[in-house]
Amino acid sequence: MKVSELSRRTGVQVPLIKYYLREGMLPPGRATAANQADYGEDHVRRLRLIRTLIGTRGLSAGATKEILDAITAGQEDLHQVLGIVLGVRPAKGAGPEPAADPAQGPDENPEGLAEARGLIDAMGWDVSPGNPATRTLAEVLAALDHLGAGVDWHSLLPYARLADDMAELDLRQLDGGDDPLAQAERAVLVTVLLEPALLALRRLAQEDKSSRLFGGAHADGTDEA
Amino acid sequence: MKVSELSRRTGVQVPLIKYYLREGMLPPGRATAANQADYGEDHVRRLRLIRTLIGTRGLSAGATKEILDAITAGQEDLHQVLGIVLGVRPAKGAGPEPAADPAQGPDENPEGLAEARGLIDAMGWDVSPGNPATRTLAEVLAALDHLGAGVDWHSLLPYARLADDMAELDLRQLDGGDDPLAQAERAVLVTVLLEPALLALRRLAQEDKSSRLFGGAHADGTDEA
Repeated sequence: MKVSELSRRTGVQVPLIKYYLREGMLPPGRATAANQADYGEDHVRRLRLIRTLIGTRGLSAGATKEILDAITAGQEDLHQVLGIVLGVRPAKGAGPEPAADPAQGPDENPEGLAEARGLIDAMGWDVSPGNPATRTLAEVLAALDHLGAGVDWHSLLPYARLADDMAELDLRQLDGGDDPLAQAERAVLVTVLLEPALLALRRLAQEDKSSRLFGGAHADGTDEA
Repeated sequence: MKVSELSRRTGVQVPLIKYYLREGMLPPGRATAANQADYGEDHVRRLRLIRTLIGTRGLSAGATKEILDAITAGQEDLHQVLGIVLGVRPAKGAGPEPAADPAQGPDENPEGLAEARGLIDAMGWDVSPGNPATRTLAEVLAALDHLGAGVDWHSLLPYARLADDMAELDLRQLDGGDDPLAQAERAVLVTVLLEPALLALRRLAQEDKSSRLFGGAHADGTDEA
């Protein structure tokens, strides 16, 4: 199909498609004339994935490109793809930003890191030293400690067990007979795209439990029927 | 203590403390002279909470002020505080941003909302219609559907059950004999601050499961010992 048809099918404007082509986020079409190319279903699927990662998930174009490169590069080896996807730090604002206070900075946080490693060891998780999630966990544990919240890694153990169950579910979603590219795309969806849904589910469940435990009125002030 | 001492104790520069005072994020001290005030332990605690929400959690000053107002306003009623905290949309970038494509916009997403409500009903959750997490869930479900990922609300049911267990844990953390302000602060910590830690735990568990299921090498390329 022509680029105009690709635009119609995906709802992405032609200039934006050309930008993704220039940035290498979308593979080039098959050249049919000096200034024309032919695009296929792979382009439709890839464009939808780009729009989802940028539009719905709020990732930057740079983070999206990293993920797409991971899909293309590692499509033969699902563990490798997942590793690259997991190694991509959440887009700006999605996770903790580097603390303004240098005392809480990632490299000056030995207590937080020791706490995080304590939890990882207690779970018996086999993770690479470079997994950025370890640092995120360390930052939150240090912040909780700094606030005197009385929450240390031991209190997070029950959460870690639930996260473990969740990861089992995640990986089961990937174990399909699909082609490698489709499977790699699923890895991205399950890893990155599901995150806001999981937080949303937790917030909904929190409101439900809160209403049962602490009060009879809805959080928005309306009474229960 | 004087503002200089408050700055030393918390590591927050004096001009920034004055900004938080002007914005009403930090309650005024007890005036001791025309241009001097006395600050107490509550100020230390409040400042640390502000720095945590902004620095570690990456929230905007505006979102932080909303949360602090909720703590102050609702400290007599934990359900009310939690409701306000849950009603605060995640800071810019933390959750899905409004989709660029109007067809995916929050108000033109009836299928996504129907899916989200199907899941909420199946779980028997009692949540207010205005809970923004419903919309987040709807956006992700619509995006997954749009991508042909073969994931609908039924596939999220096992995740919803785990989220339910997680919320039970969350609420148990709040059921203490603390004073109302401390309890409200805990509600914020458990609801907002724990989110990146939970996602980090899931990513760590994913790497562990991936290594067991799909490969023997660490995601960063190092071999296993």
